[in-house]
Amino acid sequence: MTMPTTDVKIDELSNEVASTKQLVVQKFGGSSVSDAEGIKRVAQRVVDAQKAGNEVVVVVSAMGDTTDELLDLAAQVTDSAPAREMDMLLSAGERISMALLAMAINKFGASAQSFTGSQAGMITDGIHGKARIIDVDPHRIRTALDKGHIAIVAGFQGMSRTTHEITTLGRGGSDTTAVALAAALEADVCEIYTDVDGIYTADPRVVSTAQKIDRISSEEMLELAASGAKILHLRCVEYARRFGVPLHVRSSFSQKEGTWVIPGAEEKFTIEEGVALEQPIISGVAHDRSEAKVTVVGVPDIPGKAAAIFQVIADAHSNIDMIVQNVSTHGTGRTDISFTLPIVEGADALTALRAAEGKIGFESIEYNENVGKLSLIGAGMRSHPGVSATFFKALSDAGINIDMISTSEIRISVVTSADALDDAVRAIHAAFELDGDSEATVYGGTGR
Amino acid sequence: MTMPTTDVKIDELSNEVASTKQLVVQKFGGSSVSDAEGIKRVAQRVVDAQKAGNEVVVVVSAMGDTTDELLDLAAQVTDSAPAREMDMLLSAGERISMALLAMAINKFGASAQSFTGSQAGMITDGIHGKARIIDVDPHRIRTALDKGHIAIVAGFQGMSRTTHEITTLGRGGSDTTAVALAAALEADVCEIYTDVDGIYTADPRVVSTAQKIDRISSEEMLELAASGAKILHLRCVEYARRFGVPLHVRSSFSQKEGTWVIPGAEEKFTIEEGVALEQPIISGVAHDRSEAKVTVVGVPDIPGKAAAIFQVIADAHSNIDMIVQNVSTHGTGRTDISFTLPIVEGADALTALRAAEGKIGFESIEYNENVGKLSLIGAGMRSHPGVSATFFKALSDAGINIDMISTSEIRISVVTSADALDDAVRAIHAAFELDGDSEATVYGGTGR
Repeated sequence: MTMPTTDVKIDELSNEVASTKQLVVQKFGGSSVSDAEGIKRVAQRVVDAQKAGNEVVVVVSAMGDTTDELLDLAAQVTDSAPAREMDMLLSAGERISMALLAMAINKFGASAQSFTGSQAGMITDGIHGKARIIDVDPHRIRTALDKGHIAIVAGFQGMSRTTHEITTLGRGGSDTTAVALAAALEADVCEIYTDVDGIYTADPRVVSTAQKIDRISSEEMLELAASGAKILHLRCVEYARRFGVPLHVRSSFSQKEGTWVIPGAEEKFTIEEGVALEQPIISGVAHDRSEAKVTVVGVPDIPGKAAAIFQVIADAHSNIDMIVQNVSTHGTGRTDISFTLPIVEGADALTALRAAEGKIGFESIEYNENVGKLSLIGAGMRSHPGVSATFFKALSDAGINIDMISTSEIRISVVTSADALDDAVRAIHAAFELDGDSEATVYGGTGR
Repeated sequence: MTMPTTDVKIDELSNEVASTKQLVVQKFGGSSVSDAEGIKRVAQRVVDAQKAGNEVVVVVSAMGDTTDELLDLAAQVTDSAPAREMDMLLSAGERISMALLAMAINKFGASAQSFTGSQAGMITDGIHGKARIIDVDPHRIRTALDKGHIAIVAGFQGMSRTTHEITTLGRGGSDTTAVALAAALEADVCEIYTDVDGIYTADPRVVSTAQKIDRISSEEMLELAASGAKILHLRCVEYARRFGVPLHVRSSFSQKEGTWVIPGAEEKFTIEEGVALEQPIISGVAHDRSEAKVTVVGVPDIPGKAAAIFQVIADAHSNIDMIVQNVSTHGTGRTDISFTLPIVEGADALTALRAAEGKIGFESIEYNENVGKLSLIGAGMRSHPGVSATFFKALSDAGINIDMISTSEIRISVVTSADALDDAVRAIHAAFELDGDSEATVYGGTGR
């Protein structure tokens, strides 16, 4: 009687297969699919991932210049396009790239089906141009995977729950699509393909000795992204952290491991890496030139005024970053409130503020786009006074003037003049001994 | 007491408004919206139609070269694109043109919203690339009109009922979208805008003295379209006839009246135009070089063989036009069956026939693309032997050889060699005294 032995073997085999078969979500940006050659290269990579035994879902952006070309057409027709129609127009871009990618994959002998945002179950609110995902119902994707297909999904787009209108997700939309699908499908990993090979300790265009980070916690990555590191968008990292999705940021041009972004893994890393638990771990230096500084001058120093200002900005759908309120001075009973926000949202925010001038009762508004933000990110920073001492001494030694300061548990940020920013980044990178021995690969652009 | 009088006046006024307010569906092809200037010109025309007091629904094709560009991209990626993905790709074209048109209309001070085929409720079967409309549920369009919007609808596309996949309607798809929407919305008229000013008694590129037809019945238009007149597609005319939708074919470059195609209106016209009731009314001469002639040689002359052949062709989704079966000759108990079908469907049909060779038991297949079809269309033709006598004498006098003959109540068609076709068209046009005094505008291309 050998039957029992055979049974055990089959069980072991099926267990093994079950444990190696992974569900992988791969996201490719516009620069990876900018032409037919790029699409075929991505297709081969996707097919390889399936052949390695994985279930594969691919999220794509629009091809290279498609979005710019569509925006240019719109500008030829009108200077005031309705947001609903702009979403309808731009969502055509992913439809083209995803269908072509599906065709290329089929050509390489695998089977692929493409899905629009609404077909993939990306349910959003109704704010055209910067919609938020409120639910994901990927049952058509799950069915396609069960039938052995590779599923190609349009990044950046969804459908509003109440009106069934087509929406786009705004900046970082495709990354966020990928992470949201990975969460809903309980994927093992969400791979973000880009034209650099991972996250660096600083922008290699500014700091030539910056080093690639092998692993970083979601929390630190969140601070890096919020502080201007362009490779991953803040929304995508926030989503991944909330739903526990491991991210793997890597190059679409090489097979090398990139940077793993692991939810809630700080302590584990600290122990694994063999670093003393009490030492602060500095992850990197980020910088950002995309924000403007707004100062609302002469705000009555009474409760509710700051809240009123930020409500006006929120109603204009602008995202405020740093906030500083000076103490009430000059014996006037008035104070100044400064904050930073994306330059692209500056005009709308100013218009909204001026419309509310009577209600809030401020004296004037100052607006400055010629500023830059530098952030140092690292775990356990707050409990180590030595970190901020080193930080501000380095800036002082380099002769850098500081406009605003903001700190969190794992971050110190300062606003400087835009011109001084590169020097500041190099000074901080060196002061915290992040410089590596070799020259880093230079960063490229990012997809939408 | 003047109250009653006032009441009556108000009633009269509202009656008048109700009677002049029409629901108009306008269809613009790709050549009308080939660039930003074209889109703005169409937008102005659409806005004018609404300002004149109408509810307006607009169906658009993809911009000028967009479809060719997308097909070229697909060809760079694969030589065997899955039909599902080709539909996904091509449907992006209308999404671009309709969003831009909606933007331009908004710029001109009216309010427009664009809708994809599935949003507009165009429900089709699941045959990708040549789907058939099986239902139209235009409730979102009706709602948009009720709110005072102009509704822009993507031509050429729909969604399959069972699988919810995106489909395209194939040749003549945009015209058919327009007529189907007009029928579902009970529109007063469906205007088909093109780059010529109406339907002519013959193709003006072949017959320079061809005249514009002011009014024609759906039945005659059906025969003209089926016989190769390129301005209106057969499907669109069939749909309009079945649902009683009046068509108005006109130029997007002028305000002139074009050709009205009126369902079931032959007799009324005959009386109105003051022509003697017993005279045949010749509408025009159509020709067609897009078909090939297939002869299945040596088919066993037993019941069911012809049906078997045509079932094979139908299963390959090919549309057979003319059919001629020779009498069984040579004492062989075998016969030849000839038919014509679109050249683009020739390869698939031949493959299907050859695969069925064993089952059907024919001897060989002859295939000839170098043929042309000429058709004379007119009401009351069958009951006037003089018509066919004049017809065949004119061809004989011009030295034209005839390959196949087919007739209907209001049409005579012959197949000739492609080289002889233009001479044949001119001979017939002159023989039936259709020549006008002035040179006609030359025909352009047609959209999809």
